[in-house]
Amino acid sequence: MKAISSRDNPLVKRLHALATSGRERRKLGETLLDGPHLLQAALECSYPLKGLVVSASGVDKAEIAALLHEVGSDVPCHVLPDSLFAHVSPVDTPSGLLAIIDLPAAKSLGTIVENVVVLDGVQDPGNLGTILRTAAAAGVRHVLLADGCAGAWSPRVLRAGMGAHFVLDVHERVDAATWLRGFGGPVLATALSADARSLYELDLRAPVAWVFGGEGRGVSSEVMACATRHVLIPMPGAIESLNVGAAVAVCLFEQARQRSLR
Amino acid sequence: MKAISSRDNPLVKRLHALATSGRERRKLGETLLDGPHLLQAALECSYPLKGLVVSASGVDKAEIAALLHEVGSDVPCHVLPDSLFAHVSPVDTPSGLLAIIDLPAAKSLGTIVENVVVLDGVQDPGNLGTILRTAAAAGVRHVLLADGCAGAWSPRVLRAGMGAHFVLDVHERVDAATWLRGFGGPVLATALSADARSLYELDLRAPVAWVFGGEGRGVSSEVMACATRHVLIPMPGAIESLNVGAAVAVCLFEQARQRSLR
Repeated sequence: MKAISSRDNPLVKRLHALATSGRERRKLGETLLDGPHLLQAALECSYPLKGLVVSASGVDKAEIAALLHEVGSDVPCHVLPDSLFAHVSPVDTPSGLLAIIDLPAAKSLGTIVENVVVLDGVQDPGNLGTILRTAAAAGVRHVLLADGCAGAWSPRVLRAGMGAHFVLDVHERVDAATWLRGFGGPVLATALSADARSLYELDLRAPVAWVFGGEGRGVSSEVMACATRHVLIPMPGAIESLNVGAAVAVCLFEQARQRSLR
Repeated sequence: MKAISSRDNPLVKRLHALATSGRERRKLGETLLDGPHLLQAALECSYPLKGLVVSASGVDKAEIAALLHEVGSDVPCHVLPDSLFAHVSPVDTPSGLLAIIDLPAAKSLGTIVENVVVLDGVQDPGNLGTILRTAAAAGVRHVLLADGCAGAWSPRVLRAGMGAHFVLDVHERVDAATWLRGFGGPVLATALSADARSLYELDLRAPVAWVFGGEGRGVSSEVMACATRHVLIPMPGAIESLNVGAAVAVCLFEQARQRSLR
């Protein structure tokens, strides 16, 4: 392990850029994993690591020490004083451990005959990460992000995703309308329109494309025009809308419930 | 409408304190609603307003102007230059409109023979607000917050709640274990224990108390000991946990689904 103590060190500058700027992440083709949980998730999926950075006080934590041991000496590891680590940490409460990874190469988006979640304009990193985690838990592998979504591999989205990124195929900057027009199955979009059907009246056992929009703006009209069915989540309470992350959870787990029935 | 232009103005100091400090909010017994949507929700529930604050550029927005007209001249209203408004705004992207309201008086927590959501250690304001919104949408009126939860009436929780606060009975700083021991119905807690039953195998038509814990720490052992049933959300995917807000949504809407069946 090499010690670094200066803000002018090139690695420190690179870490700070990765922590704070989506443009820098794209330019460098790298991003940061924050904390032992995400590093563990990456290791379990054999995602390649380019480097590790530990805070001086993090070195002494058993959980971090065990992970460093597991990673071994092939991956370069640097130690930073706590104050310098806080400077390069992408989160307010530094975990003491960062990993540098390459952004994944964009995968070609061909025909998919499984469940797909299409997100349009989900800008909030916490919401986006939560939705990726929900999709991974519900067994949906493909998530398509149209323009206007947060960058999927930003440290905050990674943190909220809790490892989901490593088990999903996340496609960014997708022309969702064009792709949906070529999708063979039902395209379901939550909407309050008069012709919307209750979620619970739908047969969800065959693959579908789910379309969800971000807070405020919702799904763009071009993408909404691809929906073959408007879906309503019946809400018996006094409030008639859900956070998009909650709506995704209700829909995907209703589908999982139906699929689990004999 | 009165114009204010100095940071030393007592109202500006009060707003800044309310925007930034939970202690100040408790001391003053007040909090801030940010944005037209929350003000609209408060008006619909006839929640009393103590004052309005508008940014100079907000005055010209049709949505804000219409709300000011609706509120009328009985509620004092002040205009601040945009830079000063940003200084007192509790959010990063100021909406141009703030309302000052009194914190609600604590209600006595007696016997409840309806559905109840009990939250233990839900510290993240966005998660807490989202859960309140989900409860309100699912028709659950009573939410009990044990120690370790974020302050329910902080501007960030209010914002994520999207008006849920005005239709719910939110009880803060509740001794959850004591209360749950007096609850007559089933106490359901999500857990991964060997004796946990699938959510979908439970009959959820009668009132229950749902117990959910925050990220990381989970439900305290004292509160968990009150659970009469451990509940498992079956997850067919590669990730085996959900964000607490997503878990609440899945559970409460499965209950709503069962209750809607004839």
